Amino acid sequence: VRLLGRTLAEGIHLAQAAIAANAGIEALLLRRGAQSAEIERVVATIRGVPAYELAPHLFNRLSPVQTSVGLMLELAVPSTEMPPRIAEDLIYLDGIQDPGNAGALLRTAAAAGVRLALAAPATTALWSPRVVRAAQGAHFAMKLLEGLAPDQAIERFAGRWIATCAHDAESLWASPLPASAVGWVLGAEGQGVSRAMLERCQQRICIPLAEAESLNVAAAAAVCLFERRRRLDPPQ
Amino acid sequence: VRLLGRTLAEGIHLAQAAIAANAGIEALLLRRGAQSAEIERVVATIRGVPAYELAPHLFNRLSPVQTSVGLMLELAVPSTEMPPRIAEDLIYLDGIQDPGNAGALLRTAAAAGVRLALAAPATTALWSPRVVRAAQGAHFAMKLLEGLAPDQAIERFAGRWIATCAHDAESLWASPLPASAVGWVLGAEGQGVSRAMLERCQQRICIPLAEAESLNVAAAAAVCLFERRRRLDPPQ
Repeated sequence: VRLLGRTLAEGIHLAQAAIAANAGIEALLLRRGAQSAEIERVVATIRGVPAYELAPHLFNRLSPVQTSVGLMLELAVPSTEMPPRIAEDLIYLDGIQDPGNAGALLRTAAAAGVRLALAAPATTALWSPRVVRAAQGAHFAMKLLEGLAPDQAIERFAGRWIATCAHDAESLWASPLPASAVGWVLGAEGQGVSRAMLERCQQRICIPLAEAESLNVAAAAAVCLFERRRRLDPPQ
Repeated sequence: VRLLGRTLAEGIHLAQAAIAANAGIEALLLRRGAQSAEIERVVATIRGVPAYELAPHLFNRLSPVQTSVGLMLELAVPSTEMPPRIAEDLIYLDGIQDPGNAGALLRTAAAAGVRLALAAPATTALWSPRVVRAAQGAHFAMKLLEGLAPDQAIERFAGRWIATCAHDAESLWASPLPASAVGWVLGAEGQGVSRAMLERCQQRICIPLAEAESLNVAAAAAVCLFERRRRLDPPQ
Protein backbone atom coordinates (compact mmCIF):
# COMPACT_ATOMS: atom_id res chain seq x y z
CA VAL A 1 0.00 0.00 0.00
CA ARG A 2 1.50 3.32 -1.01
CA LEU A 3 -0.14 6.60 -0.04
CA LEU A 4 0.81 9.73 -1.91
CA GLY A 5 1.37 12.54 0.55
CA ARG A 6 -0.56 10.64 3.20
CA THR A 7 0.30 8.34 6.05
CA LEU A 8 -1.49 6.28 8.69
CA ALA A 9 -1.21 6.67 12.45
CA GLU A 10 -2.29 3.48 14.20
CA GLY A 11 -3.47 3.17 17.78
CA ILE A 12 -4.82 5.25 20.63
CA HIS A 13 -1.59 6.91 21.72
CA LEU A 14 -0.65 8.04 18.23
CA ALA A 15 -4.17 9.27 17.55
CA GLN A 16 -4.13 11.32 20.74
CA ALA A 17 -0.71 12.71 19.85
CA ALA A 18 -1.93 13.65 16.35
CA ILE A 19 -4.98 15.39 17.79
CA ALA A 20 -2.91 17.24 20.41
CA ALA A 21 -0.43 18.36 17.76
CA ASN A 22 -3.21 19.45 15.42
CA ALA A 23 -1.69 17.25 12.72
CA GLY A 24 -3.52 17.24 9.38
CA ILE A 25 -6.13 14.58 10.07
CA GLU A 26 -7.89 13.66 6.82
CA ALA A 27 -9.91 10.63 7.79
CA LEU A 28 -10.71 8.25 10.57
CA LEU A 29 -10.47 4.51 9.85
CA LEU A 30 -12.14 2.00 12.12
CA ARG A 31 -12.06 -1.76 11.91
CA ARG A 32 -15.60 -3.11 11.82
CA GLY A 33 -16.50 -4.55 15.20
CA ALA A 34 -13.72 -2.77 17.12
CA GLN A 35 -15.04 -0.99 20.17
CA SER A 36 -13.62 0.34 23.39
CA ALA A 37 -14.08 3.36 25.62
CA GLU A 38 -10.71 4.67 24.40
CA ILE A 39 -11.71 4.42 20.74
CA GLU A 40 -14.94 6.22 21.50
CA ARG A 41 -13.12 9.04 23.24
CA VAL A 42 -10.82 9.52 20.24
CA VAL A 43 -13.75 9.41 17.80
CA ALA A 44 -15.66 11.98 19.89
CA THR A 45 -12.68 14.36 19.76
CA ILE A 46 -12.32 14.38 16.00
CA ARG A 47 -14.77 16.51 14.07
CA GLY A 48 -15.29 17.39 10.45
CA VAL A 49 -13.38 14.53 8.84
CA PRO A 50 -14.86 11.52 7.12
CA ALA A 51 -14.97 8.29 9.10
CA TYR A 52 -14.74 4.91 7.39
CA GLU A 53 -15.55 1.55 8.82
CA LEU A 54 -13.41 -1.07 7.12
CA ALA A 55 -13.86 -4.81 6.94
CA PRO A 56 -11.30 -6.48 9.22
CA HIS A 57 -9.27 -8.03 6.39
CA LEU A 58 -8.93 -4.66 4.65
CA PHE A 59 -8.14 -2.78 7.87
CA ASN A 60 -5.50 -5.34 8.80
CA ARG A 61 -3.91 -5.10 5.38
CA LEU A 62 -3.53 -1.34 5.78
CA SER A 63 -2.40 -1.46 9.40
CA PRO A 64 1.33 -1.22 10.15
CA VAL A 65 0.95 -3.55 13.14
CA GLN A 66 -0.31 -7.11 13.24
CA THR A 67 -2.68 -6.67 16.15
CA SER A 68 -4.26 -3.25 15.96
CA VAL A 69 -6.84 -1.95 18.43
CA GLY A 70 -8.87 -1.14 15.30
CA LEU A 71 -8.28 2.61 14.96
CA MET A 72 -6.15 4.52 12.47
CA LEU A 73 -6.00 8.12 11.36
CA GLU A 74 -5.14 9.12 7.84
CA LEU A 75 -2.79 12.09 8.05
CA ALA A 76 -1.49 14.53 5.46
CA VAL A 77 2.30 14.52 5.40
CA PRO A 78 3.38 18.09 6.10
CA SER A 79 5.65 19.70 3.53
CA THR A 80 8.86 20.81 5.16
CA GLU A 81 11.28 23.21 3.60
CA MET A 82 15.00 23.15 4.16
CA PRO A 83 15.79 26.09 6.43
CA PRO A 84 18.34 28.53 4.89
CA ARG A 85 20.68 28.01 7.85
CA ILE A 86 20.64 25.31 10.50
CA ALA A 87 22.24 26.01 13.85
CA GLU A 88 20.59 23.41 16.09
CA ASP A 89 21.47 19.81 16.92
CA LEU A 90 20.18 17.34 14.34
CA ILE A 91 20.46 13.72 13.30
CA TYR A 92 21.35 12.59 9.78
CA LEU A 93 19.99 9.14 8.94
CA ASP A 94 22.58 7.86 6.51
CA GLY A 95 20.75 5.02 4.78
CA ILE A 96 18.96 3.33 7.68
CA GLN A 97 16.78 0.62 6.13
CA ASP A 98 14.60 -0.81 8.86
CA PRO A 99 11.39 1.13 9.59
CA GLY A 100 11.43 0.01 13.23
CA ASN A 101 14.97 1.31 13.67
CA ALA A 102 14.19 4.60 11.93
CA GLY A 103 11.09 5.11 14.07
CA ALA A 104 12.94 4.25 17.29
CA LEU A 105 15.64 6.74 16.30
CA LEU A 106 13.14 9.54 15.78
CA ARG A 107 11.42 8.79 19.09
CA THR A 108 14.74 8.81 20.92
CA ALA A 109 15.84 12.02 19.20
CA ALA A 110 12.61 13.82 20.14
CA ALA A 111 12.96 12.58 23.74
CA ALA A 112 16.51 13.94 23.81
CA GLY A 113 15.27 17.34 22.64
CA VAL A 114 16.50 17.05 19.04
CA ARG A 115 13.94 18.58 16.70
CA LEU A 116 15.41 18.10 13.24
CA ALA A 117 16.13 14.89 11.32
CA LEU A 118 17.67 14.78 7.85
CA ALA A 119 17.74 11.59 5.81
CA ALA A 120 19.96 10.42 2.96
CA PRO A 121 18.21 9.23 -0.22
CA ALA A 122 18.84 5.54 0.61
CA THR A 123 17.03 5.83 3.95
CA THR A 124 13.63 4.19 4.47
CA ALA A 125 10.67 6.58 3.94
CA LEU A 126 10.27 8.39 7.27
CA TRP A 127 6.54 9.02 6.87
CA SER A 128 5.64 5.39 6.15
CA PRO A 129 3.02 4.03 8.58
CA ARG A 130 5.52 1.64 10.17
CA VAL A 131 8.02 4.40 10.91
CA VAL A 132 5.23 6.66 12.22
CA ARG A 133 4.05 3.85 14.46
CA ALA A 134 7.51 3.08 15.87
CA ALA A 135 8.20 6.77 16.51
CA GLN A 136 5.09 7.10 18.74
CA GLY A 137 4.40 10.77 18.02
CA ALA A 138 7.92 12.07 17.37
CA HIS A 139 6.78 13.04 13.86
CA PHE A 140 4.59 15.74 15.38
CA ALA A 141 7.44 17.20 17.44
CA MET A 142 10.16 17.16 14.77
CA LYS A 143 10.97 18.54 11.37
CA LEU A 144 11.92 15.80 8.91
CA LEU A 145 13.77 16.46 5.68
CA GLU A 146 14.26 13.49 3.39
CA GLY A 147 16.27 12.68 0.29
CA LEU A 148 19.24 14.87 1.17
CA ALA A 149 22.61 13.84 -0.22
CA PRO A 150 25.60 14.64 2.03
CA ASP A 151 26.43 17.85 0.12
CA GLN A 152 22.90 19.17 0.47
CA ALA A 153 22.82 18.37 4.16
CA ILE A 154 26.19 19.91 4.82
CA GLU A 155 25.96 23.20 3.00
CA ARG A 156 23.49 24.89 5.32
CA PHE A 157 24.60 23.49 8.63
CA ALA A 158 26.51 25.80 10.95
CA GLY A 159 27.78 23.19 13.38
CA ARG A 160 30.01 20.16 13.69
CA TRP A 161 29.33 16.87 11.91
CA ILE A 162 30.09 13.87 14.11
CA ALA A 163 30.08 10.36 12.69
CA THR A 164 29.15 7.48 14.98
CA CYS A 165 31.48 4.58 14.17
CA ALA A 166 31.99 1.02 15.35
CA HIS A 167 35.78 1.46 15.51
CA ASP A 168 38.70 3.69 14.43
CA ALA A 169 37.27 6.56 16.41
CA GLU A 170 37.70 8.23 19.78
CA SER A 171 35.59 7.26 22.76
CA LEU A 172 32.38 9.25 23.11
CA TRP A 173 33.20 9.75 26.78
CA ALA A 174 36.61 11.22 26.11
CA SER A 175 35.44 13.35 23.17
CA PRO A 176 34.81 17.05 23.55
CA LEU A 177 31.46 18.10 22.11
CA PRO A 178 31.11 21.60 20.71
CA ALA A 179 29.16 24.51 22.18
CA SER A 180 27.76 24.96 18.68
CA ALA A 181 25.31 22.52 17.11
CA VAL A 182 26.09 18.85 16.49
CA GLY A 183 25.00 16.96 13.39
CA TRP A 184 24.99 13.31 14.47
CA VAL A 185 25.54 11.00 11.51
CA LEU A 186 23.95 7.58 12.06
CA GLY A 187 24.88 4.90 9.56
CA ALA A 188 22.96 2.07 7.97
CA GLU A 189 22.63 -1.25 9.75
CA GLY A 190 25.65 -3.34 8.79
CA GLN A 191 27.51 -0.91 6.54
CA GLY A 192 27.64 2.03 8.94
CA VAL A 193 28.21 5.62 7.85
CA SER A 194 28.72 6.07 4.11
CA ARG A 195 32.16 6.95 2.83
CA ALA A 196 30.87 10.21 1.31
CA MET A 197 29.55 11.39 4.66
CA LEU A 198 32.45 10.02 6.70
CA GLU A 199 34.87 12.14 4.69
CA ARG A 200 32.92 15.28 5.49
CA CYS A 201 32.66 14.70 9.24
CA GLN A 202 34.93 16.78 11.49
CA GLN A 203 34.86 14.17 14.25
CA ARG A 204 34.40 10.43 14.63
CA ILE A 205 33.28 8.87 17.85
CA CYS A 206 32.58 5.35 19.03
CA ILE A 207 30.89 3.93 22.09
CA PRO A 208 33.23 1.69 24.07
CA LEU A 209 31.57 -1.74 23.98
CA ALA A 210 32.25 -5.02 25.72
CA GLU A 211 34.45 -7.23 23.56
CA ALA A 212 32.86 -8.96 20.56
CA GLU A 213 29.52 -7.23 21.03
CA SER A 214 27.71 -4.75 18.81
CA LEU A 215 25.04 -2.14 19.30
CA ASN A 216 21.90 -1.54 17.28
CA VAL A 217 21.90 1.89 15.59
CA ALA A 218 18.90 3.06 17.65
CA ALA A 219 20.61 2.06 20.90
CA ALA A 220 23.83 3.78 19.79
CA ALA A 221 21.85 6.93 19.05
CA ALA A 222 20.25 6.81 22.50
CA VAL A 223 23.67 6.67 24.13
CA CYS A 224 25.10 9.53 22.03
CA LEU A 225 22.10 11.87 22.17
CA PHE A 226 21.63 11.48 25.91
CA GLU A 227 25.35 11.90 26.57
CA ARG A 228 25.01 15.18 24.68
CA ARG A 229 21.95 16.07 26.76
CA ARG A 230 23.76 15.19 29.97
CA ARG A 231 26.63 17.52 29.14
CA LEU A 232 24.31 20.39 28.21
CA ASP A 233 22.35 19.88 31.44
CA PRO A 234 24.80 18.74 34.10
CA PRO A 235 23.68 17.61 37.55
CA GLN A 236 22.82 20.54 39.79
CA VAL B 1 5.36 -22.93 16.52
CA ARG B 2 6.55 -23.88 19.98
CA LEU B 3 9.80 -25.74 20.51
CA LEU B 4 10.39 -27.50 23.80
CA GLY B 5 13.87 -26.75 25.01
CA ARG B 6 14.87 -25.65 21.52
CA THR B 7 15.11 -22.39 19.67
CA LEU B 8 15.97 -21.16 16.19
CA ALA B 9 18.77 -18.79 15.26
CA GLU B 10 18.10 -17.15 11.91
CA GLY B 11 20.66 -15.62 9.57
CA ILE B 12 24.37 -15.62 8.89
CA HIS B 13 25.49 -13.40 11.75
CA LEU B 14 23.62 -15.39 14.39
CA ALA B 15 24.80 -18.69 12.95
CA GLN B 16 28.40 -17.50 13.06
CA ALA B 17 27.92 -16.31 16.63
CA ALA B 18 26.42 -19.66 17.64
CA ILE B 19 29.32 -21.53 16.06
CA ALA B 20 31.90 -19.25 17.69
CA ALA B 21 30.22 -19.67 21.08
CA ASN B 22 30.01 -23.42 20.67
CA ALA B 23 26.27 -23.20 21.35
CA GLY B 24 24.34 -26.48 21.28
CA ILE B 25 23.65 -26.75 17.56
CA GLU B 26 21.18 -29.59 16.96
CA ALA B 27 20.27 -29.14 13.33
CA LEU B 28 20.78 -26.99 10.27
CA LEU B 29 17.69 -25.80 8.42
CA LEU B 30 17.96 -24.53 4.86
CA ARG B 31 15.25 -23.09 2.67
CA ARG B 32 15.11 -25.01 -0.58
CA GLY B 33 16.71 -22.94 -3.31
CA ALA B 34 18.60 -20.60 -1.00
CA GLN B 35 22.23 -20.30 -1.95
CA SER B 36 25.04 -17.90 -1.30
CA ALA B 37 28.73 -18.06 -0.56
CA GLU B 38 27.97 -17.05 3.03
CA ILE B 39 25.50 -19.88 3.53
CA GLU B 40 28.01 -22.32 2.09
CA ARG B 41 30.71 -21.11 4.46
CA VAL B 42 28.41 -21.63 7.45
CA VAL B 43 27.34 -25.07 6.24
CA ALA B 44 30.97 -26.10 5.74
CA THR B 45 31.80 -25.12 9.33
CA ILE B 46 29.10 -27.21 10.96
CA ARG B 47 29.79 -30.91 11.25
CA GLY B 48 27.97 -33.83 12.78
CA VAL B 49 24.48 -32.41 12.93
CA PRO B 50 21.57 -33.27 10.66
CA ALA B 51 20.78 -30.81 7.87
CA TYR B 52 17.24 -30.38 6.58
CA GLU B 53 16.15 -28.69 3.41
CA LEU B 54 12.68 -27.25 3.92
CA ALA B 55 10.12 -26.18 1.37
CA PRO B 56 10.02 -22.36 1.28
CA HIS B 57 6.51 -22.10 2.78
CA LEU B 58 7.49 -24.28 5.74
CA PHE B 59 10.82 -22.54 6.27
CA ASN B 60 9.12 -19.15 6.19
CA ARG B 61 6.52 -20.25 8.71
CA LEU B 62 9.26 -21.26 11.15
CA SER B 63 11.44 -18.22 10.53
CA PRO B 64 11.23 -15.33 13.01
CA VAL B 65 11.84 -12.80 10.22
CA GLN B 66 9.81 -12.16 7.09
CA THR B 67 12.68 -12.16 4.66
CA SER B 68 15.23 -14.71 5.73
CA VAL B 69 18.44 -15.46 3.84
CA GLY B 70 17.29 -19.08 4.06
CA LEU B 71 19.44 -20.40 6.90
CA MET B 72 18.51 -21.25 10.47
CA LEU B 73 20.13 -23.30 13.20
CA GLU B 74 18.16 -25.28 15.71
CA LEU B 75 19.77 -24.75 19.10
CA ALA B 76 19.31 -26.45 22.45
CA VAL B 77 18.37 -23.92 25.12
CA PRO B 78 21.03 -24.19 27.83
CA SER B 79 19.78 -24.89 31.32
CA THR B 80 20.91 -22.17 33.65
CA GLU B 81 20.89 -22.44 37.40
CA MET B 82 20.38 -19.56 39.74
CA PRO B 83 23.75 -18.80 41.30
CA PRO B 84 23.72 -18.98 45.11
CA ARG B 85 24.90 -15.38 45.36
CA ILE B 86 24.90 -12.69 42.70
CA ALA B 87 27.34 -9.82 43.03
CA GLU B 88 27.55 -8.51 39.47
CA ASP B 89 25.49 -5.95 37.55
CA LEU B 90 22.32 -7.42 36.05
CA ILE B 91 19.06 -6.43 34.40
CA TYR B 92 15.65 -7.55 35.60
CA LEU B 93 13.02 -7.61 32.83
CA ASP B 94 9.87 -6.84 34.74
CA GLY B 95 7.15 -7.99 32.34
CA ILE B 96 8.47 -6.76 28.99
CA GLN B 97 6.07 -8.11 26.36
CA ASP B 98 7.50 -7.31 22.97
CA PRO B 99 10.09 -9.82 21.66
CA GLY B 100 11.85 -7.09 19.67
CA ASN B 101 12.22 -4.94 22.78
CA ALA B 102 13.40 -7.87 24.90
CA GLY B 103 15.97 -8.85 22.28
CA ALA B 104 17.19 -5.27 21.87
CA LEU B 105 17.57 -5.04 25.65
CA LEU B 106 19.68 -8.18 25.81
CA ARG B 107 21.88 -7.00 22.94
CA THR B 108 22.39 -3.63 24.61
CA ALA B 109 23.12 -5.23 27.98
CA ALA B 110 25.74 -7.55 26.49
CA ALA B 111 27.34 -4.61 24.68
CA ALA B 112 27.48 -2.70 27.96
CA GLY B 113 29.24 -5.63 29.61
CA VAL B 114 26.25 -6.91 31.61
CA ARG B 115 26.27 -10.70 31.60
CA LEU B 116 23.18 -11.63 33.60
CA ALA B 117 19.50 -11.06 32.83
CA LEU B 118 16.64 -12.11 35.09
CA ALA B 119 13.04 -12.05 33.92
CA ALA B 120 9.74 -11.84 35.78
CA PRO B 121 7.13 -14.51 34.97
CA ALA B 122 5.06 -12.08 32.86
CA THR B 123 8.00 -11.36 30.55
CA THR B 124 8.07 -12.68 26.97
CA ALA B 125 10.01 -15.96 26.57
CA LEU B 126 13.64 -14.92 26.20
CA TRP B 127 14.66 -17.95 24.14
CA SER B 128 11.92 -17.55 21.53
CA PRO B 129 13.32 -17.27 17.99
CA ARG B 130 12.21 -13.64 17.67
CA VAL B 131 14.02 -12.59 20.85
CA VAL B 132 17.11 -14.57 19.83
CA ARG B 133 17.05 -12.86 16.44
CA ALA B 134 16.69 -9.34 17.89
CA ALA B 135 19.48 -9.96 20.41
CA GLN B 136 21.99 -10.83 17.64
CA GLY B 137 24.12 -13.20 19.67
CA ALA B 138 23.73 -11.74 23.17
CA HIS B 139 22.21 -15.07 24.24
CA PHE B 140 25.62 -16.70 23.82
CA ALA B 141 27.37 -14.07 25.96
CA MET B 142 24.85 -13.87 28.80
CA LYS B 143 23.21 -15.99 31.46
CA LEU B 144 19.43 -15.77 31.33
CA LEU B 145 17.17 -16.78 34.21
CA GLU B 146 13.45 -16.67 33.56
CA GLY B 147 10.26 -16.89 35.58
CA LEU B 148 11.67 -15.23 38.68
CA ALA B 149 9.21 -13.37 40.90
CA PRO B 150 10.61 -10.28 42.68
CA ASP B 151 11.28 -12.19 45.92
CA GLN B 152 13.22 -14.89 44.13
CA ALA B 153 15.27 -12.34 42.25
CA ILE B 154 15.99 -10.27 45.30
CA GLU B 155 17.01 -12.87 47.83
CA ARG B 156 20.35 -13.80 46.31
CA PHE B 157 21.45 -10.43 45.01
CA ALA B 158 24.16 -8.63 46.92
CA GLY B 159 23.81 -5.22 45.32
CA ARG B 160 21.45 -2.29 44.90
CA TRP B 161 18.14 -2.54 43.03
CA ILE B 162 17.47 0.54 40.91
CA ALA B 163 14.10 1.06 39.25
CA THR B 164 13.97 3.00 36.01
CA CYS B 165 10.89 5.23 36.13
CA ALA B 166 9.20 7.73 33.86
CA HIS B 167 8.69 10.22 36.71
CA ASP B 168 8.77 10.63 40.53
CA ALA B 169 12.43 9.75 40.58
CA GLU B 170 15.79 11.44 40.66
CA SER B 171 17.73 12.25 37.51
CA LEU B 172 20.08 9.50 36.38
CA TRP B 173 22.76 12.11 35.91
CA ALA B 174 22.49 13.42 39.46
CA SER B 175 22.17 9.96 41.02
CA PRO B 176 25.09 8.29 42.73
CA LEU B 177 25.60 4.72 41.55
CA PRO B 178 27.06 2.21 43.99
CA ALA B 179 30.50 0.64 43.89
CA SER B 180 28.71 -2.67 44.48
CA ALA B 181 26.53 -4.31 41.83
CA VAL B 182 23.44 -2.69 40.33
CA GLY B 183 20.24 -4.59 39.54
CA TRP B 184 18.54 -2.46 36.88
CA VAL B 185 14.79 -3.00 36.90
CA LEU B 186 13.22 -2.36 33.49
CA GLY B 187 9.44 -2.20 33.41
CA ALA B 188 6.87 -3.35 30.90
CA GLU B 189 5.94 -1.15 27.95
CA GLY B 190 3.17 1.15 29.13
CA GLN B 191 2.80 0.06 32.75
CA GLY B 192 6.44 0.43 33.78
CA VAL B 193 7.95 -1.30 36.79
CA SER B 194 5.53 -3.46 38.80
CA ARG B 195 4.43 -2.26 42.21
CA ALA B 196 5.87 -5.39 43.86
CA MET B 197 9.32 -4.67 42.46
CA LEU B 198 9.14 -0.91 42.89
CA GLU B 199 8.61 -1.35 46.62
CA ARG B 200 11.75 -3.44 46.89
CA CYS B 201 14.04 -1.07 45.00
CA GLN B 202 16.46 1.03 47.04
CA GLN B 203 16.65 3.73 44.37
CA ARG B 204 14.48 5.15 41.59
CA ILE B 205 15.95 7.00 38.68
CA CYS B 206 14.54 8.67 35.60
CA ILE B 207 16.11 9.97 32.43
CA PRO B 208 15.42 13.69 31.97
CA LEU B 209 13.44 13.89 28.69
CA ALA B 210 12.26 16.74 26.53
CA GLU B 211 8.75 17.77 27.49
CA ALA B 212 5.85 15.55 26.42
CA GLU B 213 8.14 12.88 24.97
CA SER B 214 8.69 9.28 26.03
CA LEU B 215 11.43 6.73 25.61
CA ASN B 216 11.16 3.11 24.54
CA VAL B 217 12.32 0.70 27.26
CA ALA B 218 15.23 -0.54 25.14
CA ALA B 219 16.43 3.05 24.55
CA ALA B 220 16.07 3.84 28.26
CA ALA B 221 18.14 0.77 29.09
CA ALA B 222 20.84 1.87 26.63
CA VAL B 223 21.08 5.27 28.34
CA CYS B 224 21.23 3.77 31.87
CA LEU B 225 23.60 0.90 31.18
CA PHE B 226 26.06 3.05 29.25
CA GLU B 227 25.92 5.81 31.86
CA ARG B 228 26.92 3.10 34.31
CA ARG B 229 29.69 1.96 31.98
CA ARG B 230 30.90 5.53 31.53
CA ARG B 231 31.23 6.02 35.27
CA LEU B 232 33.07 2.73 35.74
CA ASP B 233 35.42 3.60 32.89
CA PRO B 234 35.93 7.35 32.97
CA PRO B 235 37.86 9.18 30.21
CA GLN B 236 41.60 8.80 30.60
